[in-house]
Amino acid sequence: MKLSQIGEFGFIERFSKRFANISSNNAMGIGDDCAILPLDENYEQVVTTDLLIEDIHFLRSAISPGDLGYKALAVNLSDIAAMGAQPTASFLSIAIPSDTDVEYLDEIMQGYHELSTKYNVPLLGGDTTKSPDKLVINVCVMGKIQKGKSRRRSMAQPGDVICVTGPLGDSAAGLKMILNNIRPDNESKELIRWHNRPEPGINEGLWLAKQDGTKAMMDLSDGVASDLRHIMKQSKVGATIDIEKIPISEALKATAAKQNWEPEVLALTGGEDYRLMLTLDKDKSTEIIDRYNQQFPHPLTTIGEITESENHEIRWIKNNQSFKLTKEGFNHFGHQ
Amino acid sequence: MKLSQIGEFGFIERFSKRFANISSNNAMGIGDDCAILPLDENYEQVVTTDLLIEDIHFLRSAISPGDLGYKALAVNLSDIAAMGAQPTASFLSIAIPSDTDVEYLDEIMQGYHELSTKYNVPLLGGDTTKSPDKLVINVCVMGKIQKGKSRRRSMAQPGDVICVTGPLGDSAAGLKMILNNIRPDNESKELIRWHNRPEPGINEGLWLAKQDGTKAMMDLSDGVASDLRHIMKQSKVGATIDIEKIPISEALKATAAKQNWEPEVLALTGGEDYRLMLTLDKDKSTEIIDRYNQQFPHPLTTIGEITESENHEIRWIKNNQSFKLTKEGFNHFGHQ
Repeated sequence: MKLSQIGEFGFIERFSKRFANISSNNAMGIGDDCAILPLDENYEQVVTTDLLIEDIHFLRSAISPGDLGYKALAVNLSDIAAMGAQPTASFLSIAIPSDTDVEYLDEIMQGYHELSTKYNVPLLGGDTTKSPDKLVINVCVMGKIQKGKSRRRSMAQPGDVICVTGPLGDSAAGLKMILNNIRPDNESKELIRWHNRPEPGINEGLWLAKQDGTKAMMDLSDGVASDLRHIMKQSKVGATIDIEKIPISEALKATAAKQNWEPEVLALTGGEDYRLMLTLDKDKSTEIIDRYNQQFPHPLTTIGEITESENHEIRWIKNNQSFKLTKEGFNHFGHQ
Repeated sequence: MKLSQIGEFGFIERFSKRFANISSNNAMGIGDDCAILPLDENYEQVVTTDLLIEDIHFLRSAISPGDLGYKALAVNLSDIAAMGAQPTASFLSIAIPSDTDVEYLDEIMQGYHELSTKYNVPLLGGDTTKSPDKLVINVCVMGKIQKGKSRRRSMAQPGDVICVTGPLGDSAAGLKMILNNIRPDNESKELIRWHNRPEPGINEGLWLAKQDGTKAMMDLSDGVASDLRHIMKQSKVGATIDIEKIPISEALKATAAKQNWEPEVLALTGGEDYRLMLTLDKDKSTEIIDRYNQQFPHPLTTIGEITESENHEIRWIKNNQSFKLTKEGFNHFGHQ
């Protein structure tokens, strides 16, 4: 049997069962944005790691080394943000083909350093080694959060409203432009910029985890359509999403119009948004959203609600009608 | 400028300076087997990470998947052992070519699980992703140790005796057999076994860190000739090594005789021993060594002593004469 037949999640399921015999001393492992480990009397530690491989996660021809270094750390910080935690340290493993220019590596480290400085995250170690051909980068980040305050995927409840912290689909559109060799204009440049240099929602996550009304939280790395299912599965709930409420940036609207793309499909099925998706206690949501919007540049936007259904299927609504979401997009949405 | 011109250590030096601006909150970063982070009132956390790339660190044709999984964790646990710490959690990132058999992956995880179970180290997370061609494995391990008790490379002092926890050179000889396609006999099989499935000195490290007389400690991954220089540099000391005292296994002696290899050269310059090298307060050393040898299968062996010299050159002694160590080995040792 080949890996392609069971997929990555199938493989993870196979081995994670095997490890259930080892006591984890109150730690929480596989299945959320971060693992949670006991730290001291008042705090817990969160840990995440992400592996980026050349030609799978990035093309050297399509991303500057500075952006690559920035992004390698950003995708990990985004997982820390999703727990509501403060990042405390990073570890960088990098495998380098021997004909790589040192100046190229310097720029990777400059981008990595820029983001490290922004959130005051020291680089405390790692591993540097040769690679036969592809550039390989693994980053591991630790963070801390007050005991019991981390927001997990299992914390959503029926009636919660579902929110996102920024416009969706920009990164997916940026990637589409890169892969299709579309020359960016002033507006669409922004899409590629967000794809190559996403900003982790550290401050947003920290603020949200301080609010009592914030329930489940995660970062959007595979797109709402895929990521929301993790919350549904772990919280044993259903969800309804109002397609019209999905926040779409002006840059995506303009570019999608020109290219004849459906922006909502990119926003819901494209990945690498690195915005936070969270659920809020309905009664507290208006007040939380108001206060949030006074502090952060992108409004916290309600896109749907958590329901009692347990079939793990998202109900997609537009103009009060239900739709099916397929890879082909809106045209093929069938009325139910 | 190409990376090959400055090497990995040159690259690390370039970027580690850059990160000095970020406060590390009493943590100790790059430069030892593990980083050390504050944990709670009584304990500190140690963290290490190692990246293994197919065709650089292993050949799929020369190591079974079970051994590969075992070794990927073992080399990290060896770094935890070198601090004298107890491992507490591991994180595994793996990038997999899509035509890989699931059964092959299952065996990797079985080997990884076997060692995890032996030292009770839960697997708390990681990342699973595609790879274009090579299998890539990054492991990150955390451990804990009583505050101030970790043994660092900077703790050696003139007069200390230098010890190792087991025979050296087996792994290097095993690798030589693999690369030269030498058919193993009963004895030399052991060399390949140690190369493919090294045993981290967790219990040895824990015991040694509890002894007052234990000073600097590190694990042998690049060979005594290279690794000892880290202790010398960080402790600002010199060292004399008595070549005749280097512990050589019977398997290596027998195989070296057959193959016409010089076992001492393999023992001193070959890598991946994953034995611990440490320095002991001379006055306490006899007593510590006696007690150690009552508990552990391989004797703790004195191979030299720390001196006051600061020129970072190891003094190699044999039959009371000084030698130079070159890549060509003993034949070319010149009298000084």
